[in-house]
Amino acid sequence: MRVMGVDPGLTRCGLSVIQGGQGRQVIALDVDVVRTPAEQPLAHRLLAISDAVEYWMDTHRPDVIAIERVFSHQNAPTAMGTAQAAGVIALSAARRDIDVHFHTPSEVKAAVTGNGRAGKSQVTEMVTRILTLQQKPTPADAADALALAICHCWRAPMIARMAEAEAMAAVQRRKYQATLKAAKAAKAAKVSAAGSDSGSGRMSRGVI
Amino acid sequence: MRVMGVDPGLTRCGLSVIQGGQGRQVIALDVDVVRTPAEQPLAHRLLAISDAVEYWMDTHRPDVIAIERVFSHQNAPTAMGTAQAAGVIALSAARRDIDVHFHTPSEVKAAVTGNGRAGKSQVTEMVTRILTLQQKPTPADAADALALAICHCWRAPMIARMAEAEAMAAVQRRKYQATLKAAKAAKAAKVSAAGSDSGSGRMSRGVI
Repeated sequence: MRVMGVDPGLTRCGLSVIQGGQGRQVIALDVDVVRTPAEQPLAHRLLAISDAVEYWMDTHRPDVIAIERVFSHQNAPTAMGTAQAAGVIALSAARRDIDVHFHTPSEVKAAVTGNGRAGKSQVTEMVTRILTLQQKPTPADAADALALAICHCWRAPMIARMAEAEAMAAVQRRKYQATLKAAKAAKAAKVSAAGSDSGSGRMSRGVI
Repeated sequence: MRVMGVDPGLTRCGLSVIQGGQGRQVIALDVDVVRTPAEQPLAHRLLAISDAVEYWMDTHRPDVIAIERVFSHQNAPTAMGTAQAAGVIALSAARRDIDVHFHTPSEVKAAVTGNGRAGKSQVTEMVTRILTLQQKPTPADAADALALAICHCWRAPMIARMAEAEAMAAVQRRKYQATLKAAKAAKAAKVSAAGSDSGSGRMSRGVI
């Protein structure tokens, strides 16, 4: 499975591509950081990010895009720009029919370091070791993008099992609701049949 | 000037197009609300919004897009979705080289009602009157999209004057910095000339 990891952002947007193999085997294929100048209008910054991301998608042809889930309670004005960048990236994936998954920062940290509250340096350290890189990826956004892709590779089997279970539950729910509806319809039919019987009875009594 | 107003949102995204004329004259050309189901994946919802907005842009060919500026301190989870929708819309505009402007909710309310804290019903009431509509636009997102476009039409001359003043200030700043640089360079040249004079003086003294 080929996973593209994205640490979204307007000023720096981390991009990575990883090939997942047997078990926990992962190979780094590419990593980079796209930067857009703060003095540019927002729409132009989003366009630059979208163009870069689409070029990566068309070049590396990933099976899935893993994006960091942004929370608004972090740094408010930055969070909005980050959300907009994430939106633009998810759109590019949807246009190419590529699956998009979001992972929270703590899910990513827990996946690569075993600790959901690990620091940036610890994440970088573990990413370097897991991918047996010659040197530490910099800046932190590059390491984060790699960590996201690793996280998705390792969580994918569990996510697939969850989706399967949810689909099965949905089928069961539909079956149960159909049974319930049929039972209700049967009961209603019985009542109305009984009602028309008694009705005609009353009528005939009235006639007499 | 033809303005497309957008009240961004995932569940309901208000779209409008208005033609601005002489002074405060405004004519409504179109208004609608795009809805996407909450159970769809985020990327697909963004794609549906992007497709609708691009169709509007290509059909109505607006000169400018006015989008409501989202703040994260409002309703946190909703704000992130709204920001993502706004990002996708700004991107579509940038791809078509259409200018994008953001207006805050209070700027919009102040423009159409004279009160930055006006309620939804007051905004709808004023939008209906200003555009002399046969009936009130519903839902509120439709009225908000119209209010945004009106707000931009009326603020555009001021925004243009501000941009002009800022451009002039930038030119003045560049000129001043060039003068300053030239003055510094001249001073440095004078000092180094004096330095080499005294240096040669000392050397000749050493030789003697």
